[in-house]
Amino acid sequence: MKICVLPGDGIGPEIMAEAVRVLEALNLGFEMETALLGGCAVDATGNPYPEATQKLAQEADAVLLGAVGGPQWDTLPREQRPERGLLGIRKQLNLFANLRPAILYPELANASTLKPEVVAGLDILIVRELTGDIYFGQPRGIEEREIDGQKQRFGFNTMHYSESEIRRILRVAFEAARKRNKKLCSVDKMNVLETTQLWRDIANELAPEYPDVELSHMLVDNAAMQLVRNPKQFDVMVTGNMFGDILSDEASMLTGSIGMLPSASLDANNKGLYEPSHGSAPDIAGKGVANPLATILSAAMMLRYTFNMEEAAVKVENAVKKVLAQGYRTGDIYEPGTTKVGTRQMGDAVLAAL
Amino acid sequence: MKICVLPGDGIGPEIMAEAVRVLEALNLGFEMETALLGGCAVDATGNPYPEATQKLAQEADAVLLGAVGGPQWDTLPREQRPERGLLGIRKQLNLFANLRPAILYPELANASTLKPEVVAGLDILIVRELTGDIYFGQPRGIEEREIDGQKQRFGFNTMHYSESEIRRILRVAFEAARKRNKKLCSVDKMNVLETTQLWRDIANELAPEYPDVELSHMLVDNAAMQLVRNPKQFDVMVTGNMFGDILSDEASMLTGSIGMLPSASLDANNKGLYEPSHGSAPDIAGKGVANPLATILSAAMMLRYTFNMEEAAVKVENAVKKVLAQGYRTGDIYEPGTTKVGTRQMGDAVLAAL
Ligand SMILES: CC(C)[C@H](C(=O)O)[C@@H](O)C(=O)O
Ligand SMILES: CC(C)[C@H](C(=O)O)[C@@H](O)C(=O)O
Repeated sequence: MKICVLPGDGIGPEIMAEAVRVLEALNLGFEMETALLGGCAVDATGNPYPEATQKLAQEADAVLLGAVGGPQWDTLPREQRPERGLLGIRKQLNLFANLRPAILYPELANASTLKPEVVAGLDILIVRELTGDIYFGQPRGIEEREIDGQKQRFGFNTMHYSESEIRRILRVAFEAARKRNKKLCSVDKMNVLETTQLWRDIANELAPEYPDVELSHMLVDNAAMQLVRNPKQFDVMVTGNMFGDILSDEASMLTGSIGMLPSASLDANNKGLYEPSHGSAPDIAGKGVANPLATILSAAMMLRYTFNMEEAAVKVENAVKKVLAQGYRTGDIYEPGTTKVGTRQMGDAVLAAL
Repeated sequence: MKICVLPGDGIGPEIMAEAVRVLEALNLGFEMETALLGGCAVDATGNPYPEATQKLAQEADAVLLGAVGGPQWDTLPREQRPERGLLGIRKQLNLFANLRPAILYPELANASTLKPEVVAGLDILIVRELTGDIYFGQPRGIEEREIDGQKQRFGFNTMHYSESEIRRILRVAFEAARKRNKKLCSVDKMNVLETTQLWRDIANELAPEYPDVELSHMLVDNAAMQLVRNPKQFDVMVTGNMFGDILSDEASMLTGSIGMLPSASLDANNKGLYEPSHGSAPDIAGKGVANPLATILSAAMMLRYTFNMEEAAVKVENAVKKVLAQGYRTGDIYEPGTTKVGTRQMGDAVLAAL
């Protein structure tokens, strides 16, 4: 049972340290090895996803990631930017199924910008396809072309999905809905994009195999509205890589506390990469104030999905709930009347609650 | 001064009737001619954008549209679906600049699902490119291909933008920001999509020509979050056709009252198509309860942008504000303590207020 630990950039190392402490405290016999991904990897090797990291990630059973990126790497050539490392590892490990829960913890209900009655009890699971779509489609690029009698730059990208790519992610979503409230909303733009017409067709073809799951379809523009209007209408949502990027971020912000939200990216054999939904927060990096709970909850997802250790996963999740109930808050979720703590103290509190 | 009136489907005819009454009452000498677009056009001619409508729309100075679409046309072949009519007229008339205001009327603050302090005074203008991007890009389609040794369906679409397409929409946005609070946020996904890297490059190249406008950039996933987290940080947002479709709907729903929001789609000479931001609402069609105010406000935008009649535009907008202040509400914006009215009565109230 080998875990590849990638602290990454910004607040990554701080929050990862707490997740590693939690895993160690569980004493489940994991072998953990650390490597570089993102900006720190570019600085050290010139490559955001260096060969040593590739080797380790491929050997390991699971990858636990902090966060990557920061302004100092934004002006590098495309191939060297931190997010190339992230896209590279997702693609190389075939992590096509991104599971992103958007859960509102009752103790943090005030953090949401939405009215309490609209978001109380919110619990959505977004299933996002992660290795296809316009993210990886060829041809792509920026070229000079002769257009309207003028030499012009021309940018182009290709959205595409094959039947098998669509089918495997939809199956993940149907299965997930089956274990939850049995409602699956598939999001597309079939009225404009043929690629997503195929997506809708295949969803309809699969539906009879999951008679216990209620399948619905929604256009992406309407989905972006409905998440604001009445997010609790959703149980599981499934969509492609590009729409999933947008909608999962919108959904997570409905909770007002993205410092709490983990994510899993799985291959066909439940090997997975686990990372918080938030970014590397360069503005607070190194200050010891970042919220480690999303990373700790990502480790819990790892226990559940890759290592099939449901009991240990629930134990970690309950410990997190307990520290919230005890009133411990990092700055991002602080409100008057609670106890403000730093990254390390939050880790201590979770360890104590375990 | 000729206006092509396209009532369309669903509630379209009802809400359009009120907008036409308002225009007539202003007595500005418009010639108005009605034609078919969308599902009603398919039913009558087999074509969602029939030749007679094309001719009229091309001759007219402006087009006023109700709404198109409805479930009875969803199973037709792609070329016959109502939205083909809409995409067809946008493309044929070269209406590349879609202006979508998201304004929260103080009287309707409660309608929002967001907390009052988050949305009070909200006034965002989204500028969406409307004739390019993955909406119209070739190649596109669904084909059978041999993939991984298997015959499979394969769906594909092409996102693309040329330098001149990007530049002209950015100029519209810079000019709009100049007339407002001088803040322009350009939204892209430059970390993944080359097309939008070009978009960002061109925005940066144009910025020195608008030194009075503060240009910022935001990734589309972050924009979807920031609209929920703190929408009042935005003044003007500009983005491509696909991202604009999603973000403008999300932004309009922040107000909780999309029955109030107009839109304009302009060509390079201020010829325009004007339509409410909401859809054809088939569920309430024919009942006389739909909110005509977004269509009436669309007519006001037409007076402003195409006919350069700022005074008349403001007069209509003030009449709408007055009926809100008087407490008149259609069902979609009704709350206890106000006066519930139907479509026609709302039109009467606006006429009285004029
Ligand atoms: C960093 C970026 C490439 C990435 C994505 O778009 O997938 C991120 O936004 C995410 O959602 O994990
Ligand atoms: C009906 C559809 C083709 C259209 C679009 O996607 O542009 C609509 O959603 C809009 O925003 O006007």
